[in-house]
Amino acid sequence: MSAPAIELLAIGDELLLGETLDTNSRWIAHRLARAGIRIAQTTTVGDEVGRIRTALAAALARSGTVVCTGGLGPTIDDVTRHAVAELYGRRIVIDEAWIDVLRERYRVRGIPMPEINRVQGELPEGARALPNPRGTAPAIVIDDPAIGMTVLLPGVPSEMRGFMDDVVVELLRERLGARSPILIRLLRTAGLSEAALADSVADLVHDTSPVSVAFLPHTAGVDLRLSCDGGDADARRRLEQLLVELRDRVGTAVYAEDDSDLAAVVGELLRARGLTLAVAESCTAGMLGKRLTDAAGASAWLLGGFIVYADAAKRDLLGVEAELLAEHGAVSEACARAMARGARRRVATDVGLSITGIAGPGGGSAEKPVGTTWIGIDTAAAAAARRFVFPGDRAEVRERATQAALDLLRRTLLRD
Amino acid sequence: MSAPAIELLAIGDELLLGETLDTNSRWIAHRLARAGIRIAQTTTVGDEVGRIRTALAAALARSGTVVCTGGLGPTIDDVTRHAVAELYGRRIVIDEAWIDVLRERYRVRGIPMPEINRVQGELPEGARALPNPRGTAPAIVIDDPAIGMTVLLPGVPSEMRGFMDDVVVELLRERLGARSPILIRLLRTAGLSEAALADSVADLVHDTSPVSVAFLPHTAGVDLRLSCDGGDADARRRLEQLLVELRDRVGTAVYAEDDSDLAAVVGELLRARGLTLAVAESCTAGMLGKRLTDAAGASAWLLGGFIVYADAAKRDLLGVEAELLAEHGAVSEACARAMARGARRRVATDVGLSITGIAGPGGGSAEKPVGTTWIGIDTAAAAAARRFVFPGDRAEVRERATQAALDLLRRTLLRD
Repeated sequence: MSAPAIELLAIGDELLLGETLDTNSRWIAHRLARAGIRIAQTTTVGDEVGRIRTALAAALARSGTVVCTGGLGPTIDDVTRHAVAELYGRRIVIDEAWIDVLRERYRVRGIPMPEINRVQGELPEGARALPNPRGTAPAIVIDDPAIGMTVLLPGVPSEMRGFMDDVVVELLRERLGARSPILIRLLRTAGLSEAALADSVADLVHDTSPVSVAFLPHTAGVDLRLSCDGGDADARRRLEQLLVELRDRVGTAVYAEDDSDLAAVVGELLRARGLTLAVAESCTAGMLGKRLTDAAGASAWLLGGFIVYADAAKRDLLGVEAELLAEHGAVSEACARAMARGARRRVATDVGLSITGIAGPGGGSAEKPVGTTWIGIDTAAAAAARRFVFPGDRAEVRERATQAALDLLRRTLLRD
Repeated sequence: MSAPAIELLAIGDELLLGETLDTNSRWIAHRLARAGIRIAQTTTVGDEVGRIRTALAAALARSGTVVCTGGLGPTIDDVTRHAVAELYGRRIVIDEAWIDVLRERYRVRGIPMPEINRVQGELPEGARALPNPRGTAPAIVIDDPAIGMTVLLPGVPSEMRGFMDDVVVELLRERLGARSPILIRLLRTAGLSEAALADSVADLVHDTSPVSVAFLPHTAGVDLRLSCDGGDADARRRLEQLLVELRDRVGTAVYAEDDSDLAAVVGELLRARGLTLAVAESCTAGMLGKRLTDAAGASAWLLGGFIVYADAAKRDLLGVEAELLAEHGAVSEACARAMARGARRRVATDVGLSITGIAGPGGGSAEKPVGTTWIGIDTAAAAAARRFVFPGDRAEVRERATQAALDLLRRTLLRD
């Protein structure tokens, strides 16, 4: 892809100690990708002048433009300004106009400004301070034709995002001459392994230039991501053509062509058909209900459900017969069917959907190993159940079971 | 702290495009910090042989030891093995023993192995493959005294974590001669804001040297983290003393002194007391059940529950009276109490626990703004309900409601 590229430098001991999850780099990457700017590389270093200077110099040498986050606070461990001043060979000066702004803010609140805040006026000589309406640290832009341009942003996510949206995205687009956003399209699939999906489309993705194709496996399925330079009409045509070919090939395993969650897709199918749903969950114990209600609006079609963790609950709440449980066990086709039927009847809905499985780590046997799961569905017209043996740990088995139940429901609704 | 240091290299276009949040680097940093190993720097690059090779070479030159994650999948965009082979000047060979293992796994599941999986046997000549019990890509360890040691781990979090816990942490400790792990102790609290907690312990955390104290706020509560050099006996004593002082001061808001989840703490209280639980969830729609069953073993005390998203379900499944709903609404003390009572009676348990609230974004009013939530609890001895108004978006309100329900149950069990 020929989109212009920059680098990111995230600064903070807390990131290297694993105490804080760096959500800023991802947000910036996502934001810039859609603005036609690529991230070539990101680096994370601690609050040390030497490390920051060395990493920033290397990034500028590679890419010419770097956005840094973090290390702009008022306390002694915040050294980003000094590292940058050293690298650019500038002395530190004080932006008295910004100190006046801060002092006025404190005055309005009726408290004296802590003197420590004078640090927030520091910047390398000749750099530009961008006032911060959301906090005390201004963003700083410093440019030198021989070194490159560095943008310093506070690490506080809301302040960083504000600067990006207000000023920095446009600043970067102008500097880099980014004319055309990257065009990104997704095909989200469920029910196929990455290897099976790759096998089935191998000939289509063999040579896709100028379009990039990537397989993105998640616990819940595999996404196919197609991307190209949005300013290249030929590339756009090729991408759209490839999208159609892949969609036709992959068929009903594709559940979305954007970043929709499968639960949202299923909810929309139920809403459009005017159908109502009840769920019955054993090993997932509420995950299916949770997923279905992640977005608001589910009350139109999800009426209720049952967490039937104990066999007694399957019997008492859903009417699964004791004899059935004794003969087949709770993880069986018969039980999954009875659970789906029980949920549908007791909540009086159009559809009942059930999950019963062995999430592990214990409870498996040779005949029913950990991961064995039956998904049941029951409607006025038909009833069915499917068996799966999911890989992964307890959390993954439960996630995969939830996704498989949603996918079985989706496929059933598509057929009706 | 003088702990030996390594570097991390995260590989994947999806990371640079902002499509995937890199949780692996944080997890590894966190895990290694406890094992006495510091992360000096982390770098993220895309799936390009040249970029990977250059970044890896630079990291090895700085630190001598690098852990890489990602780019070990079976598809053409996964090029990590090839970049590493180039850097170390080795050719790619196939580990046929591993292919046999994969083939046997597929045979057991009754499906033929996709031929694309042969890629999973590829490794640089002379490197060591560590078998992967959780997936198809082995970890790869390659060492050359002139270049340094590189450990390649799959990007799938559960597989990466399994390798770290099973083998890699010990491997790194031995290589680096890490003698004294950092001693880290947690006090996890629920029901207090960060500011309230900080105020209540301000005098105790004013000067704690040589022990570090940090406040770590999450959606679900605030953790107090105490840490020191585990090799320093004086520091260890000071840490233990401080831990006792803080615990005494914070009191029953402390629910754990390790990284236990509140749901696990509550489960243990129920188990120890021989009590059984049923839940009734409206706005959380299964999140409470899910949390309670994240760890195995919940079947001893969680018998069942109800997802009562619609008012009709509250009435039909739990026996909440239509008049009550008409008079007070579903988000009310009366409804929370009736839901908890209904759950307890219909599943025949010792305790019933309910959540009913307005998660948003819509549905709020002046009297009952978004975030308004009632938590109800019902036992043979007593019944109670508490009102909360949680801040945050829909997802946060639901998480906070789940945590508050668990905390109300915990405090009730502690009193009995």
